[in-house]
Amino acid sequence: MELYEDERLDYLFTDESMQIIQSPSVFSYSIDAVLLAHFSSLPKKRGKILDLCSGNGVVPLLMSRYTTRPIDGIEIQTKLHDMAMRSIRLNDKQDQIMMHLGDLKDLPDHYKNDKFDLVTVNPPYFDTASDAHHNLNEHLTIARHEVTTSLETVIETASKLTKSGGKMTMVHRPDRLVDIFLLMRQYKLEPKRMQLVYPKRDKEANIVLIEAMRDGKKALKTLPPFYVFNDEGTYTEEYLRLVY
Amino acid sequence: MELYEDERLDYLFTDESMQIIQSPSVFSYSIDAVLLAHFSSLPKKRGKILDLCSGNGVVPLLMSRYTTRPIDGIEIQTKLHDMAMRSIRLNDKQDQIMMHLGDLKDLPDHYKNDKFDLVTVNPPYFDTASDAHHNLNEHLTIARHEVTTSLETVIETASKLTKSGGKMTMVHRPDRLVDIFLLMRQYKLEPKRMQLVYPKRDKEANIVLIEAMRDGKKALKTLPPFYVFNDEGTYTEEYLRLVY
Repeated sequence: MELYEDERLDYLFTDESMQIIQSPSVFSYSIDAVLLAHFSSLPKKRGKILDLCSGNGVVPLLMSRYTTRPIDGIEIQTKLHDMAMRSIRLNDKQDQIMMHLGDLKDLPDHYKNDKFDLVTVNPPYFDTASDAHHNLNEHLTIARHEVTTSLETVIETASKLTKSGGKMTMVHRPDRLVDIFLLMRQYKLEPKRMQLVYPKRDKEANIVLIEAMRDGKKALKTLPPFYVFNDEGTYTEEYLRLVY
Repeated sequence: MELYEDERLDYLFTDESMQIIQSPSVFSYSIDAVLLAHFSSLPKKRGKILDLCSGNGVVPLLMSRYTTRPIDGIEIQTKLHDMAMRSIRLNDKQDQIMMHLGDLKDLPDHYKNDKFDLVTVNPPYFDTASDAHHNLNEHLTIARHEVTTSLETVIETASKLTKSGGKMTMVHRPDRLVDIFLLMRQYKLEPKRMQLVYPKRDKEANIVLIEAMRDGKKALKTLPPFYVFNDEGTYTEEYLRLVY
């Protein structure tokens, strides 16, 4: 497996069973991807999964440990798509995970009436209004800001590709929660399950996980809070369970 | 102070400084009212407050301990309005708290261009669709179900009566959060602060507190979770602080 300049191999789980190619200057996955993969109810015996905004393929790779169902993904950046493809081969997952290179808005035309049981997405968090904060590094900017896509395009696309009764899961920042709920309902993805993630007990939430059901009935469940760190600054048991 | 059949006098705070008339068959306040009063940032030196769906006047009475600014309230049920009026006199708050008897939707006509710095509301939680669950007791039904008003009317009315830059606070059930956010944004009350209340550590949230700003900028803060009970089933310190 060839590694390019600035790339490194990291373990995905502490049992060292799976590895992923990362690059600090291009893309490294965060806890958000780990939380999204574990929050999502995976189809086990039938059904298939689609991951949008896949980056280096971390969410499909994490999910592939817990289901044998097919997982498609899409990434718009050539460099990240290439990292994902190499990581998939490295873990011998090329029969399960298929990674598109392209713009997610073209996927509904590609799949036509072929829809998914689960669509996952860890989209760029910052809207384009915050131009001043754009990262000078183009790769990180595209991964973090709504430059090549938007929250509305992500949700509209997910809606078109989710079966009626199927699930869509998203990880995002809680400050966008109102926008997210509005757009989900507008595109018939009804929020059914939400979990707020807090860095520690007395801090504001900094991550939100949402599961919506295509054509679902109205009624939102709010799961117990998830804490990443104990008061002492060490990882909580609930976080460590996700990576062990 | 005359008490009618089935009524009793309860203390509002554990220091026994204030009392309120309650009636198990008509209306007794819940922890939701206590949480709402404490979640709301009260105007201190200037400004005035309006409380919608006041019931027996519990939220105005609780707030009157922490601010001397005028508080108006409105209640549609004659029996509850009468209980509120008597409790206000009992605590010698008749110069600060003024209680309307009537339908909140008539308030904007009444106040015309006179608007409030803070509008609080603990509305009926259940939509009219859940007819089967209507309480056989008419008083409790009206207090708990959207019979005489609706979530949309409450939010539309609050919007008309809140100053630009003023605050509206609401306590509700988390399962209606999507509806609440949609209607708030529709009526220019932008959600700015949210707190989820959990019965205890590993349970789903059962209460949500929301503060919106009239004409506010988009950006929601999610406060640390609030727990009512410890694992042992005793009240948490943070809850006891509200009633002491």
